[in-house]
Amino acid sequence: MREAHYFYVPDAAQQRELPADECQHAIRVLRLKVGNVLFLMDGVGNYYRAQVTEASSHHCCYEIVETLPQERQWEGHVHLAIAPTKMMDRMEWMMEKVTEIGIDELTFLDCQFSERQVVKLPRIEKIVISAVKQSRKAWMPVVHEMTTFKTFISQPREGRKYIAHCYEEIPRSYLFDELCIPSPLNSHDATVLIGPEGDFSIDEVRQAVEAGYISVHLGKSRLRTETAGLSAVMMMQLSKGERVKK
Amino acid sequence: MREAHYFYVPDAAQQRELPADECQHAIRVLRLKVGNVLFLMDGVGNYYRAQVTEASSHHCCYEIVETLPQERQWEGHVHLAIAPTKMMDRMEWMMEKVTEIGIDELTFLDCQFSERQVVKLPRIEKIVISAVKQSRKAWMPVVHEMTTFKTFISQPREGRKYIAHCYEEIPRSYLFDELCIPSPLNSHDATVLIGPEGDFSIDEVRQAVEAGYISVHLGKSRLRTETAGLSAVMMMQLSKGERVKK
Repeated sequence: MREAHYFYVPDAAQQRELPADECQHAIRVLRLKVGNVLFLMDGVGNYYRAQVTEASSHHCCYEIVETLPQERQWEGHVHLAIAPTKMMDRMEWMMEKVTEIGIDELTFLDCQFSERQVVKLPRIEKIVISAVKQSRKAWMPVVHEMTTFKTFISQPREGRKYIAHCYEEIPRSYLFDELCIPSPLNSHDATVLIGPEGDFSIDEVRQAVEAGYISVHLGKSRLRTETAGLSAVMMMQLSKGERVKK
Repeated sequence: MREAHYFYVPDAAQQRELPADECQHAIRVLRLKVGNVLFLMDGVGNYYRAQVTEASSHHCCYEIVETLPQERQWEGHVHLAIAPTKMMDRMEWMMEKVTEIGIDELTFLDCQFSERQVVKLPRIEKIVISAVKQSRKAWMPVVHEMTTFKTFISQPREGRKYIAHCYEEIPRSYLFDELCIPSPLNSHDATVLIGPEGDFSIDEVRQAVEAGYISVHLGKSRLRTETAGLSAVMMMQLSKGERVKK
């Protein structure tokens, strides 16, 4: 079975040409010709079956043959806010994995003990686009610029809010148990904050709790930052079914 | 706070010297001296507080000061059997992550559509040891040599057994739902089979079902092999609490 070719084209229905990156891939790597079929995804819920109408070294034009709106793969809004690790490759693979598993929004946090204050967003976006294509998702997660911890917790936010940390002197529940409790509005929206390698500061945890974040831990295992981020996303996704059953 | 130094020493109580790899790290990297404190883990449930008694360029001898037996972090036996990916780095990070999250046994499967028949076990073991130390586990997961699919499914196995695949013509339940159903014996032992990039063959799935494996899928998202392995381990761990509550 030949694999179909997928391309990410924001505003695909309004465009007539692949963006430069995607054009390069279509023409130089896949060697697509006039008449070949391609699939476009606009990142906001639609696939399009399209046909190549012009293929030159710098242009790949298409016409849309069919619009294929997709159902959402999950309910509710999954938001991870995480302090990036010192080693960026660890964040990069986490981005790939959380995109595969399913995330709506990701924010990089600048915390008191952060070991990294700068993140190259274009590189992260490239990884996310590739994972979205590979896992055939019609929705593109939103990735935000680095945001200070204070700014983030002061922003209004829908749904359940949690801060995961390692301080035993602050009472903590187990995130997955908390997520499995049906909420009054039965909303599936959730946000989890994950700190840097050296954890949040105890002041930050207290500020978050004051701002309405529930203090949680991620279980008995000691996890690296990127594994904690991945676990949190997995828990946000898996708990939905459990809430509905209760 | 200074981090304690952890070393993996099988049979630590019977030995008086760090193995070559660990010795190198202790002497050349950490520059430990006579009298320094170190922590040994034997991989079968014990930590030991020990003191350096001799430190030369090729030997690091110790004496045990205190034996610290550890409680198990989870109940039941978590076994993942997976066809290794073509790109070995993807398996390597999965090994690190499943070790952090918690696994007892891992088998590499040689399947009909496998793209890789050889795995360098010493390299994998090194990654597992490093993750065990980093996540402060007292038990070392058992990693098996490559095993043919046929041999694996014909071996007797305790607890729940599942095969994850993508064939829509074979009825499949959702792995996490299956795992959350309390079993008659309330055993927490589970084994999940994950196929190669091109999936198991349909014959393999049928053979596994005949051998008592339950046919499952991993949810609505299309996952890479290594993400599927990680998801399966996460589901085996998270479902335990849900079973107990029911």
